[in-house]
Amino acid sequence: MNYAMIVNILGWLLIVESLLMAPSALVALIYREKAGVAILLTMVICSCIGAVMALARRPKKKRIYAKEGMVITALTWFAYSILGALPFRISGYIPGMIDAVFEMASGFTTTGASILSDVEALPHCLLFWRSFSHWVGGMGILVFAMAVVPLAGGGSNMFMMKAESPGPSIKKIVPKVRGTAGLLYKIYIAITLIQLVLLLVGRMPLFDALCITFGTAGTGGFSIANSGCADYSIYQQVVITVFMIIFGTNFSAWYLLMKRRFKEALGISEVIVYYAIVAASILLITFNICGSYSGFGLALKDAAFQVGSIITTTGYATTDFNLWPSFSKWILVLLMFCGACAGSTGGGIKVSRIQIAFKTVIKEIDSVTHPNNVRKIKIDGKQLEHSVLRGTNVFFMAYLLIYGLSVLLISLDNFDLETNFTAVAATLNNIGPGLAGVGPTQNFSGYSPFSTCVLIFDMIAGRLELFPVLALLSINTWKEGGVIAPRGVFRKKQEDTEESTLF
Amino acid sequence: MNYAMIVNILGWLLIVESLLMAPSALVALIYREKAGVAILLTMVICSCIGAVMALARRPKKKRIYAKEGMVITALTWFAYSILGALPFRISGYIPGMIDAVFEMASGFTTTGASILSDVEALPHCLLFWRSFSHWVGGMGILVFAMAVVPLAGGGSNMFMMKAESPGPSIKKIVPKVRGTAGLLYKIYIAITLIQLVLLLVGRMPLFDALCITFGTAGTGGFSIANSGCADYSIYQQVVITVFMIIFGTNFSAWYLLMKRRFKEALGISEVIVYYAIVAASILLITFNICGSYSGFGLALKDAAFQVGSIITTTGYATTDFNLWPSFSKWILVLLMFCGACAGSTGGGIKVSRIQIAFKTVIKEIDSVTHPNNVRKIKIDGKQLEHSVLRGTNVFFMAYLLIYGLSVLLISLDNFDLETNFTAVAATLNNIGPGLAGVGPTQNFSGYSPFSTCVLIFDMIAGRLELFPVLALLSINTWKEGGVIAPRGVFRKKQEDTEESTLF
Repeated sequence: MNYAMIVNILGWLLIVESLLMAPSALVALIYREKAGVAILLTMVICSCIGAVMALARRPKKKRIYAKEGMVITALTWFAYSILGALPFRISGYIPGMIDAVFEMASGFTTTGASILSDVEALPHCLLFWRSFSHWVGGMGILVFAMAVVPLAGGGSNMFMMKAESPGPSIKKIVPKVRGTAGLLYKIYIAITLIQLVLLLVGRMPLFDALCITFGTAGTGGFSIANSGCADYSIYQQVVITVFMIIFGTNFSAWYLLMKRRFKEALGISEVIVYYAIVAASILLITFNICGSYSGFGLALKDAAFQVGSIITTTGYATTDFNLWPSFSKWILVLLMFCGACAGSTGGGIKVSRIQIAFKTVIKEIDSVTHPNNVRKIKIDGKQLEHSVLRGTNVFFMAYLLIYGLSVLLISLDNFDLETNFTAVAATLNNIGPGLAGVGPTQNFSGYSPFSTCVLIFDMIAGRLELFPVLALLSINTWKEGGVIAPRGVFRKKQEDTEESTLF
Repeated sequence: MNYAMIVNILGWLLIVESLLMAPSALVALIYREKAGVAILLTMVICSCIGAVMALARRPKKKRIYAKEGMVITALTWFAYSILGALPFRISGYIPGMIDAVFEMASGFTTTGASILSDVEALPHCLLFWRSFSHWVGGMGILVFAMAVVPLAGGGSNMFMMKAESPGPSIKKIVPKVRGTAGLLYKIYIAITLIQLVLLLVGRMPLFDALCITFGTAGTGGFSIANSGCADYSIYQQVVITVFMIIFGTNFSAWYLLMKRRFKEALGISEVIVYYAIVAASILLITFNICGSYSGFGLALKDAAFQVGSIITTTGYATTDFNLWPSFSKWILVLLMFCGACAGSTGGGIKVSRIQIAFKTVIKEIDSVTHPNNVRKIKIDGKQLEHSVLRGTNVFFMAYLLIYGLSVLLISLDNFDLETNFTAVAATLNNIGPGLAGVGPTQNFSGYSPFSTCVLIFDMIAGRLELFPVLALLSINTWKEGGVIAPRGVFRKKQEDTEESTLF
């Protein structure tokens, strides 16, 4: 384990975090808010700790491998959540440190679950920091940092990027890691700006438009009004709906559209399935709820908003869907688990994994009835590699194990099953609101500090797709050595990994 | 597809079903109950249909393959449930045919879920038939038939036995299929008799003792009193607890014990894990509930009974565990999914699959942090074959897909999420009671006929471990042909399959 490099990179990343707080400090200045002092103080703390770590010891070897990549990524997300929580704690707006960490972990992981019952009581600068963390976390903290500076030597960045980016790797955009990171951020910034302009055109105040856009882009879901998004105009709600769905789409599609490769863009099967699920869910829910609405149009608007919000794991709400009929509620629960596309800013299990699961099951039915008939699983005409299939299978199992255990631990607080079940669904899938006691009009403040810690763990584990966080807990990760392959073999493998990128 | 053989075997199996009703007819005679006429009538109907099917056409080829094995098994279970329901329908004790089929599917699949609110209103002969169906279904309808007569030529029986027996295949008992089937039934009958004697010693009336023993042996759970098992003496409750856990143990262990191979018997890791889970769950629940009990002993007794009942998927209850604290309730929900050992009469996902899932996840964590370090998954010192691992993975996925879809369909009835979620858990895992609206003091009569059909499907799919029933629904199963392997290869494969048995 290259400890020196881990400390070094973490140090630099903390300095980056202190810089990320600068816009919030600016907001405090504009609105002349006292909480700005807490932000400035945190920036100083962050950069001091960061500087000490980054400059303390010069690493002898700059090269890191998969193990270090996992550990750095997981540690960064915990560190960002803890240090990012300080402005809330210092300013006193969230008195409990664990609650404050929950709020920031919820921000960076783009969950959007809150322990606050009255968000309108927060000053603008803290509201801005919360929402801005969605935007940073959406595309990835390390991906952001890497787009700007190379953190480690050679192809090492790949390992961190792999640990942080969502979904099983199926397609690649450009061969170089830094190039991909930069490209992703360009697309991300471009779509963000378009949404911002459209909301401003719809007469949303600049501050609201900024915060809502950050929350949409990162598929986060922190709102800045106690009513969620219910008080925005229909035009504004429609814009948010459309952009939630856009940000939940595999970014490969936007890249290909940008390059005018329309046929390829429209042929990505994950994207097709994703839009099909969205359309089917909206229709089913609309028909299910339209009895209690004054018109089909309004029901359609609310159904579309909620479906877009839940499948992309954003978590905004324009209505209390906890009051919907069971059928619609269960569709939302299924969408919570399904999640958005791989290679988007959304969370959840991801459409491509569901696709792979479906194809695997259908193939297995064929192979039990026709044992001598060998078939391969293909997606977009390409045969899936064994490692992708195995990774998907194992993901499901790890997911179920963490799920079951998390509900068990938080059920010590003795809330009802629906609350606990959907609280874990909402955090592990980075959605935000669940149902019943953690429904869209409720919040997570009822849970004990212990349960809050479990849910913080779930949010970060969910955002990093389980394995980096599980690796942090595994003894084997911290053991030195393991089987070292002959140099030649290792080099080759290394380069293979560098070549393949994340989509 | 060898349709002639399918019809032929199904015919014989229906004749067997009519014979299986004979003991219930005898009970009717003893108690002089009018419902006996309904049973006799059903026996006649059953054997007529069976005889026509069995004798109509002489199959040219007697050999069948995996595909036919799956189809026969799945069809048999549906046919048994439908024809077995006739006595309830004809006698009028269950007026709706779908409800009656639910009751019998629940019997044969050893679920124990009931649509009856007052079981004490049933005559003895029908109570006996319900409970007896547990005993038959526990070890398997086809396994029973095969222990008595060879249904198809050569090694074809293997395919049906494979389709019907629970758990991923890990160990084998004896090389011949018929031998294994016979041996299993001998052990099964022996343990059943011991329990019966112990209950009679504890002064339980013979009729009660018979019904309760059938329910325990098959891990079914139909009770013959409205109070479930709450009114039995502590001695009787303890006997039932112990035997539920015994019948949930992998029968390989009992076979090895019988052969005095103690070390091997006690070394089966699935059995060790199973008992560890049982012990841990009992302790955790006891501490969690003992505040509301007058003594630790009583809490322990109730915790042990409920844990034994749920993990083995029996479904008896001595207390309304729906009123327990959330922590204990969630442990029970986890046990519902976990289920008993492979190669037992219990249902659920099976301990060995959970073991494999755990090991797979741990291996994956190692392999993402040490990509060059190749490890194999072992259970009981033997490396698991790729096909077992794949089968387990795919099982989980198929399970989740069926689960999600089933809850969606039954949620059209607009019951709350906890009721729907545990109704599917209770049927797909063949347990019986769920929580909330389908808790131990409630029943399944509230669901619409459509939802009842979904739950019937779930019970049979769960009992046959999904794939035989899914194969029935797949178009590919009914297509002729497929890729035919060269004769030499096929023969060899065929023999391989014959050799390996089910444990």
